[in-house]
Amino acid sequence: MAMDSLDALFEDTLRDMYYAEKKLTKILPKMAKKASSPELADAFTSHAEETEEHVTRLEKVFEIIGKTARAKKCEALEGLSAEGDHVMEEAGDDGVMDAGLIASAQAVEHYEIARYGALSAWAGQLNFSDAVSLLEQTLEEEKAADEKLNGIAETVNETAMHAEAAE
Amino acid sequence: MAMDSLDALFEDTLRDMYYAEKKLTKILPKMAKKASSPELADAFTSHAEETEEHVTRLEKVFEIIGKTARAKKCEALEGLSAEGDHVMEEAGDDGVMDAGLIASAQAVEHYEIARYGALSAWAGQLNFSDAVSLLEQTLEEEKAADEKLNGIAETVNETAMHAEAAE
Repeated sequence: MAMDSLDALFEDTLRDMYYAEKKLTKILPKMAKKASSPELADAFTSHAEETEEHVTRLEKVFEIIGKTARAKKCEALEGLSAEGDHVMEEAGDDGVMDAGLIASAQAVEHYEIARYGALSAWAGQLNFSDAVSLLEQTLEEEKAADEKLNGIAETVNETAMHAEAAE
Repeated sequence: MAMDSLDALFEDTLRDMYYAEKKLTKILPKMAKKASSPELADAFTSHAEETEEHVTRLEKVFEIIGKTARAKKCEALEGLSAEGDHVMEEAGDDGVMDAGLIASAQAVEHYEIARYGALSAWAGQLNFSDAVSLLEQTLEEEKAADEKLNGIAETVNETAMHAEAAE
């Protein structure tokens, strides 16, 4: 599909995020299972629930622009997810696993922050004000998820460091 | 390589970023060539120069931790780069191309912001204070690059919208 208009670029990016969010509803529960810190596991579980809502919001945005909700393989999320898998497979200590899981999740949050920022700006330019409002709600939740992980990281990194001292 | 310590996780992530930054020194000049807005082209060119310095800083961090600077394929950047290539291949209008280039670049900036944030926190935990200072310098430059693109996006999205009106 050649992208000759801002509408086309918007729809293309929307399809990319639709794939990403749907995939994340499956990845986040796996990360919750791998986490040792109960606080971290809870954060992943509650963000998985938010992510279900993000999928629904994207479906509403497709409706607003009068298009069928269709996912398109999101190469960036595939790469980010491969890096998360690497941590889940290779971390040989609980604290290191948690530190690595947080970093992987924050890389995903930041990807989403960038994408929702662009989508919201484009929706505004295209005068889809209801879409702007939906995209901004998700954007704020992604930022809040990232902030929450920053807080948990302080304790987790300390634990990872102690694991090291015990070697 | 099993990651049994925070040191190992830090080195692994450092190698991932070393790959990413080296690849970006090649990608950013290509994006500058594709950009129609002179302001955007300049932003990519000056960020490419900063990126050369980011590579050098990472080499200094490897020195600080007493390890050889070795890159490891960064799957996330491969994915982000594939999405950037998609825009460069498919955008059929100058304004749409610029809007898509900015969004792709911001996705990369956000990936780097997440990664340098984690690396800096881990370096602090591991008491590599000189490394923290180098990583924070780069982190601030990535944030500034993202902010600068936000500013340019306002004009560029407007242009992309006009292109559409002319269809």
